[in-house]
Amino acid sequence: MKSAGKNLDNISIVLNEPRFPENIGAAARCCRNMGISSLAVVRPELPDREKMLKMATHEAADLIENMKIYDSLPEALSGFSHVAATTARQGRGRRATHTPREAAEMMARLSAKNRVAVLFGSENKGLSNAHLQYCNSIITIPTSGFRSLNLAQSVMVVCYEMFTAGTTDTAPAPRLANQFETGAMYQHIQEMFRAVGLHNESNPDYWINKARRFLGRCELRSWEVRLIRGLCRHVLNSVNGQSSR
Amino acid sequence: MKSAGKNLDNISIVLNEPRFPENIGAAARCCRNMGISSLAVVRPELPDREKMLKMATHEAADLIENMKIYDSLPEALSGFSHVAATTARQGRGRRATHTPREAAEMMARLSAKNRVAVLFGSENKGLSNAHLQYCNSIITIPTSGFRSLNLAQSVMVVCYEMFTAGTTDTAPAPRLANQFETGAMYQHIQEMFRAVGLHNESNPDYWINKARRFLGRCELRSWEVRLIRGLCRHVLNSVNGQSSR
Repeated sequence: MKSAGKNLDNISIVLNEPRFPENIGAAARCCRNMGISSLAVVRPELPDREKMLKMATHEAADLIENMKIYDSLPEALSGFSHVAATTARQGRGRRATHTPREAAEMMARLSAKNRVAVLFGSENKGLSNAHLQYCNSIITIPTSGFRSLNLAQSVMVVCYEMFTAGTTDTAPAPRLANQFETGAMYQHIQEMFRAVGLHNESNPDYWINKARRFLGRCELRSWEVRLIRGLCRHVLNSVNGQSSR
Repeated sequence: MKSAGKNLDNISIVLNEPRFPENIGAAARCCRNMGISSLAVVRPELPDREKMLKMATHEAADLIENMKIYDSLPEALSGFSHVAATTARQGRGRRATHTPREAAEMMARLSAKNRVAVLFGSENKGLSNAHLQYCNSIITIPTSGFRSLNLAQSVMVVCYEMFTAGTTDTAPAPRLANQFETGAMYQHIQEMFRAVGLHNESNPDYWINKARRFLGRCELRSWEVRLIRGLCRHVLNSVNGQSSR
């Protein structure tokens, strides 16, 4: 099953603070079933390889062997141009932007030229609003009342949709800015915000989080990041009367 | 989520000779997540309710409590008008007739007036040709090379497709800013650009056209327009030392 330009090698599954090694192993098996070859975890609670490997089965053992383990979420996500978060909880600032099928179509398209990731939260807590700040889109798996899927089951639904995504969409995939570029951009924006008084003493991240929520979903290209940073530089120069960087 | 005529109450999941009680429990959880309220098993190898209930979670405990346990497959299937079998193995007389999505559409349609079931084989042996004799259609879940899905994962893929079948479910469309709002925003941006020296004498629209090219494709929401104009106002205030509007 092929989609125009789809490159499953550019798609990764990232599990943030998973509690149970069995779920990590089961997720690896899902990935192997659905042609996705990259799995990473951030701060697993119990990194018991034996238990992971048992659920992964022999066929997916190499995904566990090669799995990267990170100490922080930003570090884990730094190499990706688009990160889709999965969440069952709805609420302010965390409304789903995509169904799994819509997300799979988008990721299939972007994966032609970009490294993309789907992020899953822990079994008991899911992803917090702070985690969602690093993400460009939000997937919620449709359910009937009981919204909490087993972690590996969520991974399966998403991987299955990505594998079967067969878009006839031939619009060329843009090359997106990566998280290095956008990370530096957000720092620059925050500097500019402070310089012009967009600062909330009691909630220092209030404005930058708004900017992240807006720009995060815009599929930013490199030239757009440069445009925004050019604005930051000019504003800082004008306000400070000096070269800022 | 409703489809014309679809009646999830008429759809059952039947597990033939499952080996692991954990998989029965996990299947019950899948059913509850996806609105399917009937689960039956035929000759389970180890009918350990404790282990089933642990994986089912409290939310799906009643599916385990009410689960019918049969001694033979014909008996288990006797009440259904259509039975779809799931199999990963291909071969003579066992070629897939439906993808999960096609099967889900068919089952959704039939379920309006008929009791229908999806049958899954055991973890190690799947369904034999003899078992398939009782079935009306054959579903194979598309995979990449490694075809063997965990039993509960197969149940999830099928239940997910049934739940979403026949719906044009999309993430809610955002309400976008109108041209009145964006027109005023571009004027405000141009003012800001001039104030901080982003100005090209020989091509006065150079910078604003770049901004238009970027923001024009972003499907701007009203709150985002307000955010951008808030920035413009703060920058103009900071540079001019006065209220700009």
